[in-house]
Amino acid sequence: MTGTLYGVGLGPGAPDLITLRAARLIQGAKVVAYPALVGGESFARSIAADLISVDANEILMEVPMTTERGPAQAAYDVGAAQIADALEVGQDVVVLCEGDPFFYGSFMYLYARLSDRFTCEVVPGVTSITACASVAGRPLVARNERLTVLPGPLPEDELRSRIAGAESVAIMKVGRHLTKIRAVISELGLVEHATYIERATLQNQVVLPLRDAPENAPYFSMILLTKGADPWL
Amino acid sequence: MTGTLYGVGLGPGAPDLITLRAARLIQGAKVVAYPALVGGESFARSIAADLISVDANEILMEVPMTTERGPAQAAYDVGAAQIADALEVGQDVVVLCEGDPFFYGSFMYLYARLSDRFTCEVVPGVTSITACASVAGRPLVARNERLTVLPGPLPEDELRSRIAGAESVAIMKVGRHLTKIRAVISELGLVEHATYIERATLQNQVVLPLRDAPENAPYFSMILLTKGADPWL
Repeated sequence: MTGTLYGVGLGPGAPDLITLRAARLIQGAKVVAYPALVGGESFARSIAADLISVDANEILMEVPMTTERGPAQAAYDVGAAQIADALEVGQDVVVLCEGDPFFYGSFMYLYARLSDRFTCEVVPGVTSITACASVAGRPLVARNERLTVLPGPLPEDELRSRIAGAESVAIMKVGRHLTKIRAVISELGLVEHATYIERATLQNQVVLPLRDAPENAPYFSMILLTKGADPWL
Repeated sequence: MTGTLYGVGLGPGAPDLITLRAARLIQGAKVVAYPALVGGESFARSIAADLISVDANEILMEVPMTTERGPAQAAYDVGAAQIADALEVGQDVVVLCEGDPFFYGSFMYLYARLSDRFTCEVVPGVTSITACASVAGRPLVARNERLTVLPGPLPEDELRSRIAGAESVAIMKVGRHLTKIRAVISELGLVEHATYIERATLQNQVVLPLRDAPENAPYFSMILLTKGADPWL
């Protein structure tokens, strides 16, 4: 009997936004795996830290900080092989994923490598988009409204055309793209409708009108934009 | 001192996809409120049933089943007034919301009526879109992909143009609009890329290729569509 691979969403950062199912799986896990940037702390592990057994075997996947795909994918090759070794001998493996595993999550790279050979279960988590909406006090979508989710690294022209054609918009991974994104939103005359959020639900979270957002945004930052008046009345 | 209004996301349906924070708030609540269709069971209450104290005061908002806005809004007027009465005398009120309160959630109608007078906290929940992706084994978005969320009741022409211009698509509230939506997706040559999911994470959940989906879909059904080949490799 081989083990089961669990991809477990941890939510946006506050440890108590973990689901009951995820907490139970993490507490019972004999093997946990998670990514971290090379030389840095693992954000996923920090969210779940209080739930991990002191006896658990931990598989750390060190992912280089680069926009090139090759080096990061090589790190997931190594991690997937270590995880497969545990699964082969009948151990379950719980992979810790910030947010939701299938929503811009790196768990997908492990899933692609392992799901044809092993039983996999994905535990969905609270995503950053609804977490940001909650801390900003901004409903995202109501009734028959449409929501468009865009990554901030997209080219300026594409951002412009997609925002212009959208209704409610969430822009992820703002980080060093803030200046470009704010310029696009300003050109479209929408800056007064936009809110900037960083590190939602963590103790050092920031919520500001987009016009007041800092030039240097962290990777975990987002812009929410709703056109027109109160959309939920 | 007035009480605090909590809008608490319960996730897609499985009781153990409630977050730790939501569970703690529900267990400690002296007043809980929730909507139900007139004469029907409350889906929100059913998700949280095991956590509600037997001593809790329950405020039921009976919402008429109609696409007209007036009658439903009148029900929220009544519910908001009852909730305000409790808040005025210093009681906290926990409003139970399936999914996430700010993601197509009826909690927004209470928030609009009460948030200017009372302290409000929104607890985000797991949305149906990532829950559907997890049970379908389908990553939603990776890297710099864009996600478009569309409600099924939109007019056919708008669905067609928005799906044609999108990348990864989640269509909510499919229900009686299934035939229309499937025809649009088929015309666009995308039916082989689409999965139908109903009642995700509940015991009677259904996951099928869209081409095999039943003609009579329940309200809580969704279509996930990703264009092209495996998006996560």
